[in-house]
Amino acid sequence: MNDFEIDQRLTTDSTFVTKLNLCQVRLHHNAAFPWILLIPIQANVKEIIDLTDTNQQLLLQEIVLASKVMKELYNPTKLNVANLGNMVPQLHVHVIARYDHDAAWPNPVWNSGVMDMYETKILSEQINNLATAFNK
Amino acid sequence: MNDFEIDQRLTTDSTFVTKLNLCQVRLHHNAAFPWILLIPIQANVKEIIDLTDTNQQLLLQEIVLASKVMKELYNPTKLNVANLGNMVPQLHVHVIARYDHDAAWPNPVWNSGVMDMYETKILSEQINNLATAFNK
Repeated sequence: MNDFEIDQRLTTDSTFVTKLNLCQVRLHHNAAFPWILLIPIQANVKEIIDLTDTNQQLLLQEIVLASKVMKELYNPTKLNVANLGNMVPQLHVHVIARYDHDAAWPNPVWNSGVMDMYETKILSEQINNLATAFNK
Repeated sequence: MNDFEIDQRLTTDSTFVTKLNLCQVRLHHNAAFPWILLIPIQANVKEIIDLTDTNQQLLLQEIVLASKVMKELYNPTKLNVANLGNMVPQLHVHVIARYDHDAAWPNPVWNSGVMDMYETKILSEQINNLATAFNK
């Protein structure tokens, strides 16, 4: 794990929330959508199938946990769960709470042109709420 | 399972490939991308967390199998694996083989405006190749 680093394009766009068994959880800075990233703390992993069987299981558990947290905190119309990686190949899973009245609905959030900024206080509150929900 | 039906918007856009333990596999009709759907054969399931623990495990196994099949058949730059469901809430997982030279790269395929049609013969070949790869 000594050579592990999260790609700078991911860290620039997001803030640390908490660490799970496999993944680091980060809040995406686009305030238009409640949007977190799960990033396995593993070097050289691009696809789910690059993870060991054990770590695939952990990823599923953490996607399930993240889905429950996002549903509980944000009560969305629909969750979007996706590993794309066309821009940043390092494996990262988006878990996004979508509403049928959000600014990009029903389109995906990526490349939607919809971008909003968090006020510092709101960002801090979101991170606290998420960290509490993930660790209870 | 008597009341189970796949949403017509999914069946219209895709053709049956094979049946796994949990999911039906279907080939999406957009020929611009090698693109399959995994659709759990379960009524009233919208999110991964609506599945039982056992079926969540099966879904993971089938995403892993589908990822290996798509990698082997199409040798993509990157796999896109996503459950969105903003248009059709019934749970379905997209597994898409992406190339750094495809017509939507690096953007997601949804809402990209990129759409190509399969010739009947090519569609049939793709389905045969996929069914063989899933069942070997």
